[in-house]
Amino acid sequence: MPDHAQITFIGRIRSELKTLSDCPHQGSEGAPEARIEIFPAYLDALDGITPDTRVVVLTWLDRADRTTLRVHPRGNPDNPLTGVFVTRSPSRPNPIGLHEVRVISVDRTPPVLAVAPLETLDNTPVVDIKLSWPRDVQAQP
Amino acid sequence: MPDHAQITFIGRIRSELKTLSDCPHQGSEGAPEARIEIFPAYLDALDGITPDTRVVVLTWLDRADRTTLRVHPRGNPDNPLTGVFVTRSPSRPNPIGLHEVRVISVDRTPPVLAVAPLETLDNTPVVDIKLSWPRDVQAQP
Repeated sequence: MPDHAQITFIGRIRSELKTLSDCPHQGSEGAPEARIEIFPAYLDALDGITPDTRVVVLTWLDRADRTTLRVHPRGNPDNPLTGVFVTRSPSRPNPIGLHEVRVISVDRTPPVLAVAPLETLDNTPVVDIKLSWPRDVQAQP
Repeated sequence: MPDHAQITFIGRIRSELKTLSDCPHQGSEGAPEARIEIFPAYLDALDGITPDTRVVVLTWLDRADRTTLRVHPRGNPDNPLTGVFVTRSPSRPNPIGLHEVRVISVDRTPPVLAVAPLETLDNTPVVDIKLSWPRDVQAQP
Protein backbone atom coordinates (compact mmCIF):
# COMPACT_ATOMS: atom_id res chain seq x y z
CA MET A 1 0.00 0.00 0.00
CA PRO A 2 1.39 3.49 -0.81
CA ASP A 3 1.77 5.75 2.24
CA HIS A 4 0.32 8.91 0.72
CA ALA A 5 -1.96 10.37 -1.97
CA GLN A 6 -2.36 13.68 -3.70
CA ILE A 7 -5.52 15.75 -3.42
CA THR A 8 -6.44 18.35 -6.01
CA PHE A 9 -8.37 21.38 -4.86
CA ILE A 10 -11.81 21.74 -6.49
CA GLY A 11 -12.54 25.28 -5.33
CA ARG A 12 -11.99 27.83 -2.61
CA ILE A 13 -13.90 29.63 0.11
CA ARG A 14 -14.76 33.30 -0.06
CA SER A 15 -15.62 34.62 3.38
CA GLU A 16 -15.71 37.76 5.48
CA LEU A 17 -13.44 35.86 7.94
CA LYS A 18 -9.99 37.25 7.15
CA THR A 19 -7.94 36.28 10.23
CA LEU A 20 -7.94 33.21 12.50
CA SER A 21 -9.08 35.34 15.44
CA ASP A 22 -12.27 36.14 13.48
CA CYS A 23 -13.16 32.43 13.17
CA PRO A 24 -15.51 30.66 15.57
CA HIS A 25 -14.43 27.13 16.60
CA GLN A 26 -17.45 25.53 14.92
CA GLY A 27 -19.98 26.54 12.29
CA SER A 28 -22.76 26.29 14.85
CA GLU A 29 -21.10 29.00 16.96
CA GLY A 30 -22.14 32.04 14.96
CA ALA A 31 -20.29 31.42 11.69
CA PRO A 32 -21.40 33.55 8.75
CA GLU A 33 -22.61 32.81 5.25
CA ALA A 34 -19.78 32.18 2.79
CA ARG A 35 -19.33 31.50 -0.91
CA ILE A 36 -17.68 28.45 -2.42
CA GLU A 37 -16.07 29.25 -5.78
CA ILE A 38 -15.94 25.97 -7.68
CA PHE A 39 -13.21 25.72 -10.30
CA PRO A 40 -14.88 25.56 -13.76
CA ALA A 41 -13.46 22.10 -14.55
CA TYR A 42 -15.78 20.69 -11.86
CA LEU A 43 -19.01 22.39 -12.94
CA ASP A 44 -20.68 19.09 -13.96
CA ALA A 45 -20.15 17.73 -10.43
CA LEU A 46 -22.77 20.26 -9.21
CA ASP A 47 -25.56 18.96 -11.46
CA GLY A 48 -28.74 18.72 -9.42
CA ILE A 49 -27.70 20.87 -6.47
CA THR A 50 -30.46 23.22 -5.30
CA PRO A 51 -31.03 25.74 -2.53
CA ASP A 52 -31.75 24.06 0.81
CA THR A 53 -29.63 20.99 -0.03
CA ARG A 54 -27.60 20.05 3.07
CA VAL A 55 -24.03 19.17 2.13
CA VAL A 56 -20.78 18.39 3.92
CA VAL A 57 -17.91 20.57 2.68
CA LEU A 58 -14.36 19.26 3.11
CA THR A 59 -11.69 21.95 3.23
CA TRP A 60 -7.89 21.96 3.45
CA LEU A 61 -6.94 23.95 6.56
CA ASP A 62 -3.66 25.21 5.16
CA ARG A 63 -2.68 27.22 8.26
CA ALA A 64 -2.72 24.12 10.50
CA ASP A 65 0.34 22.50 12.11
CA ARG A 66 0.55 18.96 10.72
CA THR A 67 3.02 17.78 13.39
CA THR A 68 0.59 18.31 16.30
CA LEU A 69 -0.69 15.04 17.83
CA ARG A 70 -2.16 16.34 21.12
CA VAL A 71 -3.95 19.59 21.96
CA HIS A 72 -5.83 21.30 24.76
CA PRO A 73 -9.34 21.15 23.23
CA ARG A 74 -10.69 24.50 22.07
CA GLY A 75 -7.30 26.04 22.84
CA ASN A 76 -8.20 26.17 26.56
CA PRO A 77 -5.27 25.15 28.82
CA ASP A 78 -7.81 24.03 31.46
CA ASN A 79 -8.79 21.19 29.14
CA PRO A 80 -6.41 18.21 29.48
CA LEU A 81 -4.06 17.37 26.60
CA THR A 82 -6.05 15.16 24.24
CA GLY A 83 -5.15 13.27 21.07
CA VAL A 84 -6.19 15.20 17.97
CA PHE A 85 -8.15 12.17 16.69
CA VAL A 86 -10.56 12.71 19.64
CA THR A 87 -11.02 16.44 18.91
CA ARG A 88 -12.03 18.81 16.09
CA SER A 89 -8.69 20.64 16.22
CA PRO A 90 -7.56 21.97 12.83
CA SER A 91 -3.99 20.94 13.72
CA ARG A 92 -3.64 17.25 12.83
CA PRO A 93 -1.59 15.13 10.41
CA ASN A 94 -4.03 15.73 7.52
CA PRO A 95 -5.78 19.04 8.21
CA ILE A 96 -9.10 18.40 6.51
CA GLY A 97 -11.99 20.49 7.81
CA LEU A 98 -15.54 19.07 7.86
CA HIS A 99 -18.41 21.53 7.65
CA GLU A 100 -22.08 20.66 7.43
CA VAL A 101 -23.81 23.55 5.67
CA ARG A 102 -27.04 24.44 3.92
CA VAL A 103 -26.94 25.66 0.32
CA ILE A 104 -28.51 29.11 0.06
CA SER A 105 -28.11 29.78 -3.65
CA VAL A 106 -26.44 28.29 -6.71
CA ASP A 107 -24.81 30.12 -9.63
CA ARG A 108 -23.33 28.26 -12.57
CA THR A 109 -21.46 30.93 -14.60
CA PRO A 110 -19.08 31.07 -12.87
CA PRO A 111 -19.94 28.22 -10.49
CA VAL A 112 -20.49 29.58 -6.98
CA LEU A 113 -22.47 28.18 -4.05
CA ALA A 114 -23.61 30.44 -1.23
CA VAL A 115 -23.72 28.35 1.97
CA ALA A 116 -24.08 28.80 5.74
CA PRO A 117 -22.77 28.49 8.35
CA LEU A 118 -19.07 28.24 7.51
CA GLU A 119 -16.27 28.99 10.00
CA THR A 120 -13.20 28.84 7.71
CA LEU A 121 -10.95 31.66 6.58
CA ASP A 122 -11.27 33.46 3.28
CA ASN A 123 -9.23 31.66 0.57
CA THR A 124 -9.31 28.23 2.24
CA PRO A 125 -9.01 25.50 -0.43
CA VAL A 126 -11.96 23.14 -0.91
CA VAL A 127 -11.34 19.39 -1.30
CA ASP A 128 -14.80 17.87 -1.70
CA ILE A 129 -18.55 18.40 -1.32
CA LYS A 130 -20.88 15.53 -0.41
CA LEU A 131 -24.57 15.09 0.22
CA SER A 132 -25.04 15.16 4.00
CA TRP A 133 -26.35 12.23 6.00
CA PRO A 134 -30.11 11.70 6.12
CA ARG A 135 -31.57 12.97 9.39
CA ASP A 136 -32.82 9.53 10.42
CA VAL A 137 -29.30 8.08 10.17
CA GLN A 138 -27.87 10.95 12.22
CA ALA A 139 -30.43 10.32 14.93
CA GLN A 140 -29.24 6.73 15.47
CA PRO A 141 -27.06 5.93 18.50
CA MET B 1 -2.73 29.37 -3.82
CA PRO B 2 -1.25 25.94 -4.68
CA ASP B 3 -3.65 23.65 -6.54
CA HIS B 4 -2.96 20.46 -4.60
CA ALA B 5 -1.73 18.99 -1.30
CA GLN B 6 -0.34 15.68 -0.15
CA ILE B 7 -2.09 13.54 2.43
CA THR B 8 -0.21 10.94 4.46
CA PHE B 9 -2.10 7.85 5.54
CA ILE B 10 -2.39 7.44 9.32
CA GLY B 11 -3.65 3.85 9.32
CA ARG B 12 -5.67 1.28 7.46
CA ILE B 13 -8.94 -0.60 7.74
CA ARG B 14 -9.12 -4.30 8.52
CA SER B 15 -12.50 -5.69 7.54
CA GLU B 16 -14.28 -8.86 6.53
CA LEU B 17 -15.35 -6.94 3.37
CA LYS B 18 -12.92 -8.24 0.73
CA THR B 19 -14.63 -7.25 -2.55
CA LEU B 20 -16.66 -4.22 -3.63
CA SER B 21 -19.73 -6.42 -4.11
CA ASP B 22 -19.58 -7.26 -0.39
CA CYS B 23 -19.83 -3.59 0.60
CA PRO B 24 -23.13 -1.90 1.47
CA HIS B 25 -23.59 1.62 0.08
CA GLN B 26 -23.66 3.18 3.56
CA GLY B 27 -22.60 2.13 7.05
CA SER B 28 -26.21 2.28 8.21
CA GLU B 29 -27.15 -0.42 5.68
CA GLY B 30 -25.85 -3.46 7.51
CA ALA B 31 -22.10 -2.73 7.53
CA PRO B 32 -20.04 -4.86 9.91
CA GLU B 33 -17.63 -4.08 12.71
CA ALA B 34 -14.10 -3.36 11.48
CA ARG B 35 -10.70 -2.60 12.94
CA ILE B 36 -8.64 0.51 12.30
CA GLU B 37 -4.92 -0.20 12.55
CA ILE B 38 -3.28 3.13 13.43
CA PHE B 39 0.35 3.48 12.35
CA PRO B 40 2.51 3.64 15.53
CA ALA B 41 3.82 7.16 14.74
CA TYR B 42 0.29 8.46 15.44
CA LEU B 43 -0.32 6.68 18.76
CA ASP B 44 -0.35 9.95 20.76
CA ALA B 45 -3.19 11.28 18.59
CA LEU B 46 -5.47 8.66 20.21
CA ASP B 47 -4.94 9.92 23.77
CA GLY B 48 -8.27 10.04 25.52
CA ILE B 49 -10.27 7.87 23.13
CA THR B 50 -12.60 5.44 24.90
CA PRO B 51 -15.22 2.87 23.98
CA ASP B 52 -18.53 4.49 22.97
CA THR B 53 -16.83 7.61 21.61
CA ARG B 54 -18.52 8.56 18.32
CA VAL B 55 -15.98 9.56 15.70
CA VAL B 56 -15.94 10.40 12.00
CA VAL B 57 -13.40 8.32 10.08
CA LEU B 58 -12.04 9.72 6.80
CA THR B 59 -10.76 7.09 4.39
CA TRP B 60 -9.06 7.17 0.99
CA LEU B 61 -11.24 5.16 -1.41
CA ASP B 62 -8.37 4.00 -3.58
CA ARG B 63 -10.53 1.99 -6.00
CA ALA B 64 -12.57 5.04 -7.02
CA ASP B 65 -12.50 6.71 -10.45
CA ARG B 66 -11.28 10.27 -9.90
CA THR B 67 -12.41 11.47 -13.36
CA THR B 68 -16.13 10.85 -12.68
CA LEU B 69 -18.18 14.04 -12.30
CA ARG B 70 -21.73 12.66 -12.64
CA VAL B 71 -23.26 9.35 -11.56
CA HIS B 72 -26.56 7.54 -11.32
CA PRO B 73 -26.98 7.65 -7.53
CA ARG B 74 -26.56 4.29 -5.81
CA GLY B 75 -25.52 2.80 -9.17
CA ASN B 76 -29.18 2.61 -10.22
CA PRO B 77 -29.73 3.66 -13.86
CA ASP B 78 -33.30 4.68 -12.95
CA ASN B 79 -31.83 7.52 -10.90
CA PRO B 80 -31.04 10.55 -13.12
CA LEU B 81 -27.39 11.49 -13.71
CA THR B 82 -26.39 13.70 -10.79
CA GLY B 83 -23.23 15.66 -9.99
CA VAL B 84 -21.00 13.74 -7.58
CA PHE B 85 -20.95 16.74 -5.20
CA VAL B 86 -24.68 16.10 -4.57
CA THR B 87 -24.18 12.38 -3.86
CA ARG B 88 -22.18 10.04 -1.62
CA SER B 89 -20.60 8.28 -4.62
CA PRO B 90 -17.04 7.04 -3.94
CA SER B 91 -16.08 8.13 -7.46
CA ARG B 92 -15.23 11.85 -7.28
CA PRO B 93 -12.16 14.06 -7.83
CA ASN B 94 -10.85 13.44 -4.30
CA PRO B 95 -12.23 10.07 -3.16
CA ILE B 96 -12.41 10.65 0.58
CA GLY B 97 -14.91 8.46 2.41
CA LEU B 98 -16.76 9.80 5.49
CA HIS B 99 -17.93 7.26 8.05
CA GLU B 100 -19.58 8.06 11.36
CA VAL B 101 -18.83 5.14 13.69
CA ARG B 102 -18.89 4.19 17.35
CA VAL B 103 -15.68 3.03 19.02
CA ILE B 104 -16.15 -0.47 20.46
CA SER B 105 -12.70 -1.08 21.94
CA VAL B 106 -9.25 0.50 22.03
CA ASP B 107 -5.86 -1.26 22.04
CA ARG B 108 -2.63 0.70 22.24
CA THR B 109 0.14 -1.89 21.58
CA PRO B 110 -0.17 -1.99 18.65
CA PRO B 111 -2.76 0.79 18.27
CA VAL B 112 -6.05 -0.62 16.98
CA LEU B 113 -9.60 0.68 17.27
CA ALA B 114 -12.56 -1.65 16.83
CA VAL B 115 -15.44 0.39 15.36
CA ALA B 116 -18.88 -0.11 13.81
CA PRO B 117 -20.50 0.18 11.40
CA LEU B 118 -17.95 0.56 8.59
CA GLU B 119 -18.72 -0.17 4.92
CA THR B 120 -15.22 0.09 3.38
CA LEU B 121 -13.04 -2.65 1.93
CA ASP B 122 -10.28 -4.41 3.83
CA ASN B 123 -6.99 -2.53 3.43
CA THR B 124 -8.55 0.88 2.72
CA PRO B 125 -6.16 3.65 3.82
CA VAL B 126 -7.28 5.95 6.65
CA VAL B 127 -6.71 9.72 6.36
CA ASP B 128 -8.12 11.14 9.60
CA ILE B 129 -10.28 10.52 12.66
CA LYS B 130 -12.31 13.32 14.28
CA LEU B 131 -14.69 13.65 17.18
CA SER B 132 -18.20 13.50 15.72
CA TRP B 133 -20.67 16.37 15.89
CA PRO B 134 -22.66 16.83 19.09
CA ARG B 135 -26.18 15.45 18.72
CA ASP B 136 -27.80 18.84 19.32
CA VAL B 137 -25.87 20.36 16.40
CA GLN B 138 -26.86 17.49 14.12
CA ALA B 139 -30.50 18.01 14.99
CA GLN B 140 -30.49 21.61 13.74
CA PRO B 141 -32.03 22.40 10.36
